Amino acid sequence: MDQDRELGDLREQVRVVTADIIRDVQKRMELARQIGEIKNRKGIEVKDERVEQDIRKMVLAISSQTGMKPDFALRLLNILLEESESVQAQGRQPPQKQTHLGIFMKAKQLEASGKEMIHLEVGEPDYPPPSAVGNSLSESFRLRRYHYTETRGIAKLREAIAKKENVTEDRLIVTPGGRFAVFSAIVSLLEPGNELIVLDPAWPAYKECADFAGARTRVLKTRFEDSWTPDLGMLEDMINPATKMIVLNYPNNPTGKILENKSVEKIVSLAKDNDLYVLSDEVYAAYSYGKQFQSVLEFDYEKTIMVSSFSKRYAMTGFRVGYGVADPRVIQQLNKIQAAGITSVAEPMQYAALAAIGEDHRDNVKIMKERLDYVCKRLKEMSIRFVSPDGALYVFPELPDIDDLELVDKLLERGVAVAPGSGFGDSYKNYIRISACQPLEILAKALDKTSVVLEEHA
Amino acid sequence: MDQDRELGDLREQVRVVTADIIRDVQKRMELARQIGEIKNRKGIEVKDERVEQDIRKMVLAISSQTGMKPDFALRLLNILLEESESVQAQGRQPPQKQTHLGIFMKAKQLEASGKEMIHLEVGEPDYPPPSAVGNSLSESFRLRRYHYTETRGIAKLREAIAKKENVTEDRLIVTPGGRFAVFSAIVSLLEPGNELIVLDPAWPAYKECADFAGARTRVLKTRFEDSWTPDLGMLEDMINPATKMIVLNYPNNPTGKILENKSVEKIVSLAKDNDLYVLSDEVYAAYSYGKQFQSVLEFDYEKTIMVSSFSKRYAMTGFRVGYGVADPRVIQQLNKIQAAGITSVAEPMQYAALAAIGEDHRDNVKIMKERLDYVCKRLKEMSIRFVSPDGALYVFPELPDIDDLELVDKLLERGVAVAPGSGFGDSYKNYIRISACQPLEILAKALDKTSVVLEEHA
Repeated sequence: MDQDRELGDLREQVRVVTADIIRDVQKRMELARQIGEIKNRKGIEVKDERVEQDIRKMVLAISSQTGMKPDFALRLLNILLEESESVQAQGRQPPQKQTHLGIFMKAKQLEASGKEMIHLEVGEPDYPPPSAVGNSLSESFRLRRYHYTETRGIAKLREAIAKKENVTEDRLIVTPGGRFAVFSAIVSLLEPGNELIVLDPAWPAYKECADFAGARTRVLKTRFEDSWTPDLGMLEDMINPATKMIVLNYPNNPTGKILENKSVEKIVSLAKDNDLYVLSDEVYAAYSYGKQFQSVLEFDYEKTIMVSSFSKRYAMTGFRVGYGVADPRVIQQLNKIQAAGITSVAEPMQYAALAAIGEDHRDNVKIMKERLDYVCKRLKEMSIRFVSPDGALYVFPELPDIDDLELVDKLLERGVAVAPGSGFGDSYKNYIRISACQPLEILAKALDKTSVVLEEHA
Repeated sequence: MDQDRELGDLREQVRVVTADIIRDVQKRMELARQIGEIKNRKGIEVKDERVEQDIRKMVLAISSQTGMKPDFALRLLNILLEESESVQAQGRQPPQKQTHLGIFMKAKQLEASGKEMIHLEVGEPDYPPPSAVGNSLSESFRLRRYHYTETRGIAKLREAIAKKENVTEDRLIVTPGGRFAVFSAIVSLLEPGNELIVLDPAWPAYKECADFAGARTRVLKTRFEDSWTPDLGMLEDMINPATKMIVLNYPNNPTGKILENKSVEKIVSLAKDNDLYVLSDEVYAAYSYGKQFQSVLEFDYEKTIMVSSFSKRYAMTGFRVGYGVADPRVIQQLNKIQAAGITSVAEPMQYAALAAIGEDHRDNVKIMKERLDYVCKRLKEMSIRFVSPDGALYVFPELPDIDDLELVDKLLERGVAVAPGSGFGDSYKNYIRISACQPLEILAKALDKTSVVLEEHA
């Protein structure tokens, strides 16, 4: 009976303090509205990283005084900050964004309306997958390969991948494209209000997935002037108790950069010190030219998620088969979201991937190297600056005083699709990404047209 | 300058009120910890719907007094409630859950170790897809159908589906299984702290997806005694400003129930009055026996998302092709998450679905009806109670004093896999789901074994 009274009493206190919280939150939103009005009048940005950082420090100080879990405190703060931003931004136009995938869709529509189009906007090799893949497809119906499979993938494929990557099978999940491994890692490992760090310029998927997770993306910009090498001191400064993950993508899309091993080592050790996940998207690992690429797996850090794919290596983009390698407990979490989202990867596609895995891909790398060299040569002739790619399928040149979206539109009109730099980060609107996934003579034609457009503009 | 001072002043006030909020939240968590201790001593459940409902009402009252957005207030409250629950539950064992998919994985492992297994735990028809599907597969490599496609699906498939469903193409997205349409609808339309209502017993995916979205699932239980008809008065009572979606799944998995049209009409009108989404999972629509199934699309409510699939109708589970139909603005949101998660459905699988769409599936329905009749007859002979299924692929019988998990384990030992009722909702541990996706002679064998196990137990 005493306990019942105690319980009733505590519940009443909960009611009172909940009411206080809600009233204070409303007060905070009203203040945000007033701040938004002033910012609007003065024409300044809603988001202010410095102010946010100050408030974050204050919240952390309170949480350590009161014994509150710092990650929950920061999660809560981030939810308040987000709502404040949305209150402040009311009535403002959201900035226009265009990614390479958006341009791809636009180009596809132009094609459907009869226009000829050269696709240099996506990383989709033009050469075919190995012929063994075709044989596998042809026999899949006869062999009744059209059922649900284990969510993590059929045993044979997992065995083959485990062998290739030199890991045990329990550290592996087969996903519908490397993209889904990225998606499920971010969505299942991050909670609303958590933070992840992305090194810009970057494939936009990481930020998109973070948005879905309700996580905040903190961006570490890398610069052309530094040959796209990240400033690791700045990286260290960005880490706080809300930070949960660093995303790496080398060989990099869009720059083609491969990091020095000692940089990766330093990043992994920062992650270790701060108990962060390292999500390493290595779908371009097969394509390196000269500089040797080393997988993050070799640094042997428990909280690593390595993502790879059949799409680029074997030119199998449309089969949508990739995989993730991680600690078994993380794999279980990815498995859970994969079970919820798709049950399993289409069985015929898994067998197609299995057929590919023993095949030689070195010719693909040779072809791509030759093409990238050609693109670089032509850009040099046009006096356009770029950092020579160490790997991947792209060149990321700097534009001579023309905005990316303007150039992209002009090129689309002439039947050439390229990806705008701003799709890879807010600071890159004077860059474009050129994909070398077309034969030399097509690349030549596209670069001729680019040269004409730039001359007309100059 | 005046504005600068004003801004600085407002920011200082934001700091103060933020500090108050964080301190109060910590106070609330400390109270939750104390409540958790008492509950633990008294051995009572952490979650108390009545107490939550009271606090929800209070928060709504405050939000209407202060002009706060009620959905944000409730979102925030739900985040506090969740953290409280997790604080209170510290040190407790989480309840063990086992879904049909878990049993499927278990059964697959037993098979891999050499045990023969009859699969009555998943809804995977044993008959083959139409032969046109096989032809499409065989020619897909030659026709170079292995590229990225538009995220929403190839134009031809979208045209064919649009025609079949009698909708315009902009209301359509092709997904990797109906499951992904469910997943992306829930994850993209609900925010953390939002609520969705699920009618139990239900396919567990809805709750799993809600968990990923950080949304709260409110469960409306339906009962065997009411022939699985939902109490719409109770449904109405559950709706509050945090409610954003009602999930329907008829023909129902696991009960086979088809709702009366006037019930659906009433549910849609409740949704309309409260501005809720209706997510209607109709993947079993092709399988109705006698009672005519009417799609929710016919009720013409703007905020409807209808989900369908090729998996059950054409026995194409392993191809992972389904689709969603909704208002174009909703389709854009599903498209966004699909672009982030998978880029597009595997191209050969989309062509396989296209090949199926004109084919006759009526034989499949006839086969399934005969099997379900047989299962029902055998259960009746065993004096086991059930509601005769109006549609779908399952019977959901009540168990005579044996728990589902105990029966499931005993049957697994004898080489029969069935799905435990508790996987479809907390109140159904005295039910199992029997899938009729096997030939009559196999069903006979499985039911013989079931009968033996039950007699041994009695």
